[in-house]
Amino acid sequence: MDATIDLSTAAQALSLPHIRHQLIRLEDTVLFHLIERAQFPLNATIYHPGAIPIPGSHLSFSDWVLHSTEQLQSQIRRYQSPDEYPFFPDAMQELILPELVYPQVLWQNDVNYNSELKTRYVASVLPGCCAQTGRAERAEAQENYGSAATADVLCLQSLSRRIHFGKFVAESKFRQDTARYVALIQAEDRAGIDEAITDAKVEAKVLERLRVKAEMYGADPGLGEADAPRKIDGEAVVAMYRDHVIPLTKVVEVEYLMQRLRGTEWE
Amino acid sequence: MDATIDLSTAAQALSLPHIRHQLIRLEDTVLFHLIERAQFPLNATIYHPGAIPIPGSHLSFSDWVLHSTEQLQSQIRRYQSPDEYPFFPDAMQELILPELVYPQVLWQNDVNYNSELKTRYVASVLPGCCAQTGRAERAEAQENYGSAATADVLCLQSLSRRIHFGKFVAESKFRQDTARYVALIQAEDRAGIDEAITDAKVEAKVLERLRVKAEMYGADPGLGEADAPRKIDGEAVVAMYRDHVIPLTKVVEVEYLMQRLRGTEWE
Repeated sequence: MDATIDLSTAAQALSLPHIRHQLIRLEDTVLFHLIERAQFPLNATIYHPGAIPIPGSHLSFSDWVLHSTEQLQSQIRRYQSPDEYPFFPDAMQELILPELVYPQVLWQNDVNYNSELKTRYVASVLPGCCAQTGRAERAEAQENYGSAATADVLCLQSLSRRIHFGKFVAESKFRQDTARYVALIQAEDRAGIDEAITDAKVEAKVLERLRVKAEMYGADPGLGEADAPRKIDGEAVVAMYRDHVIPLTKVVEVEYLMQRLRGTEWE
Repeated sequence: MDATIDLSTAAQALSLPHIRHQLIRLEDTVLFHLIERAQFPLNATIYHPGAIPIPGSHLSFSDWVLHSTEQLQSQIRRYQSPDEYPFFPDAMQELILPELVYPQVLWQNDVNYNSELKTRYVASVLPGCCAQTGRAERAEAQENYGSAATADVLCLQSLSRRIHFGKFVAESKFRQDTARYVALIQAEDRAGIDEAITDAKVEAKVLERLRVKAEMYGADPGLGEADAPRKIDGEAVVAMYRDHVIPLTKVVEVEYLMQRLRGTEWE
């Protein structure tokens, strides 16, 4: 099995073991990028629009870097892929490569929780991950405003991919138990859908696994210094998944299902 | 100590323990990015100019993505930093942020081995890292041309930073043993300089540490599948450092020193 999702057929894209494998692998991607971001101070200034004047733009510095990156990556088909969603739909540019045809796997929908994700990332995830264990609050450093914003793009993109994978999970569950979900959707019973998609045991296992991974990837095996700082705070990583990643994935699942009976269109 | 290099004073930037800490930390960055790249097949097509026609450009697809990324990142001061060097000097754009003033740490020089690094990366590093243990050669997939090229940018940038750190190492050694290096430089004795900067024991330790790190970061602790594929081939990582990263770092050191007596200019 490849480490990247196989969208060549609906059956493969919606296979729950395949999706599960993807979600586990994506944990590593998220962790790697967060560990890199945590090298730098929070640098709160880069998130305030106007705090760093940018010619011709009213965006915050961090948003400008994200917007510019999306402009570039939209040209090379990033947002053609059914598992990628932009933070700035207005940044989309013409393709420089021929368009790809993906099989219809997801029902047509406009679910995009990137704005909410970004808000939580800046307000909660970053302060947790950048305040490393045993270190005092680190001073801002304009020397790494660019590095921090560039690392943010990678963190946000991997988190976005993670939460929007909820659509594949939801479609898969819908197909397995269609009658039950149709009834819940028709009753607009979001709490009921949330209950139906929730597996508390799986969620606990995800958090447990993340703690182990943060320990492994955040350690420095060869530094040989007794006081070698850990690269990331495992508690902050677990909190990020518990309080934001898992809940937002479920919101994506619920809202996707709420659109599942509308129209007759496949995406 | 911060995980990012402190260039605020020459003494700090040239402290050998500080540089050593940086180089060790950079191993993690290199590994994280390579592990991400290794999710995708080699996709050799993206490295051949003309194989994927790009409007208005004769670059290979991979080079176009790298060039475009450098255009973007040059605007946010990436190449103002004394430890960052572009692969495409012609991609440099006007800054959108005020220029930063870094202290003079390195002697003026034009040493840039990115072209050689990129050649080796494509010809040797990638084929080693993308042919994962126990897997057959994976077929190209145009669905991830963009993902592969985007991951390449991160790999190349981290490797470039690693090898050009040799300049700080060389400057530090030059200051510690000036008379010896002046004599070797004046005699244009590159082999003698190479010998003077080489510490075989340290090199062996680097390789040993990399093997441990590739094992740790390449494992998947929570997959719970007996046949869980490793994310990267440890041997390929060790070979990359042994055959390319360490030798190129030393070439950077030697060529930097060969320019160390020219003129009177600090960079």
